Amino acid sequence: MKLLEDYIVNKGEIIDGDILKVDMFLNHLVDVELFNEMGKEFHRLFGNKPINKILTIEASGIGIACIVAQYFSVPVLFAKKGVHRNVGTDLYTAEVYSFTKGTVTTIGVSKKYLLPEDHVLIIDDFLADGNASLGLVSLIEQAGATLEGVGIAIEKGFQCGRDRLLEKGCDLKSLAVIKSMDGGKIVFADAADS
Amino acid sequence: MKLLEDYIVNKGEIIDGDILKVDMFLNHLVDVELFNEMGKEFHRLFGNKPINKILTIEASGIGIACIVAQYFSVPVLFAKKGVHRNVGTDLYTAEVYSFTKGTVTTIGVSKKYLLPEDHVLIIDDFLADGNASLGLVSLIEQAGATLEGVGIAIEKGFQCGRDRLLEKGCDLKSLAVIKSMDGGKIVFADAADS
Repeated sequence: MKLLEDYIVNKGEIIDGDILKVDMFLNHLVDVELFNEMGKEFHRLFGNKPINKILTIEASGIGIACIVAQYFSVPVLFAKKGVHRNVGTDLYTAEVYSFTKGTVTTIGVSKKYLLPEDHVLIIDDFLADGNASLGLVSLIEQAGATLEGVGIAIEKGFQCGRDRLLEKGCDLKSLAVIKSMDGGKIVFADAADS
Repeated sequence: MKLLEDYIVNKGEIIDGDILKVDMFLNHLVDVELFNEMGKEFHRLFGNKPINKILTIEASGIGIACIVAQYFSVPVLFAKKGVHRNVGTDLYTAEVYSFTKGTVTTIGVSKKYLLPEDHVLIIDDFLADGNASLGLVSLIEQAGATLEGVGIAIEKGFQCGRDRLLEKGCDLKSLAVIKSMDGGKIVFADAADS
């Protein structure tokens, strides 16, 4: 998606060689107009599927998922991190290793809100090694629901997330796939590669 | 806001006497159509102010804030909880006590994204004792920005959050104000009370 690639090149920053900082439009300060364009694009890519629910993970996936959900006219379910007193214990859970924090977090969704008859689109802001997305896939599997696809804003194509999701049979679409960031220069994969 | 009150009465649950569970439409499974109606109402209430940024706090504020932001055509800045490696240390921070978790969390926003010239609307899902909102007010004060108002989805009107925010001079508008939940029966304040 050319618009998102332009945002990444013009506004993003690479720190410590391998961390792409996009907190000026994606995951701290949030450009809602960009999110709407992303929503239209995700709908173009997945709109032919019988999706009735979007699943994401707190925190930075929530904004994108909510804007995207408007184009599908479906609710959003967001997986929570850690244990929350208000959620109760009747949860599907998965363990997710966070590369950026260096910690393992238990994510969970209430069994009441993820059902065997659901057709689910996963939406998230980033795909790198795929741990968060695979955690969400696990929740869908536990519920016996149908995974219709995985829509990612920015994929680090040089990490293993794509292969791990394809191994699970996921229909994965990323709006911007970064092939390399060597020397601080961002190279995108061609649309045909992704 | 009648629609939100209907959602609370028809779908909400009271647990342990004083916790209102609305995770079936507000803060776990998210009803994006409801959020859009809330967005229109917040714009009716605050649309005459020179708001150029919406501030909220992760996680459950983000979805509402992003949907609401569409009606103001402004970006959303969400305060992060805890320390994040990617955010850096150049932050405005505040300590927030979470009633539901029983813990104190440091929230923060990057100084780059909250500026003295900003006119900020705070949006959040809940107001109870006001700790989260007051933390956000503190971030705005530290930045020297202008607080234009505080828009809350559901206010527990029998707790002290309203008084604490009014003491700070906030223009507070809540879409549903719960006057009491005694005996499991939800009574709303009249619109004129709030």
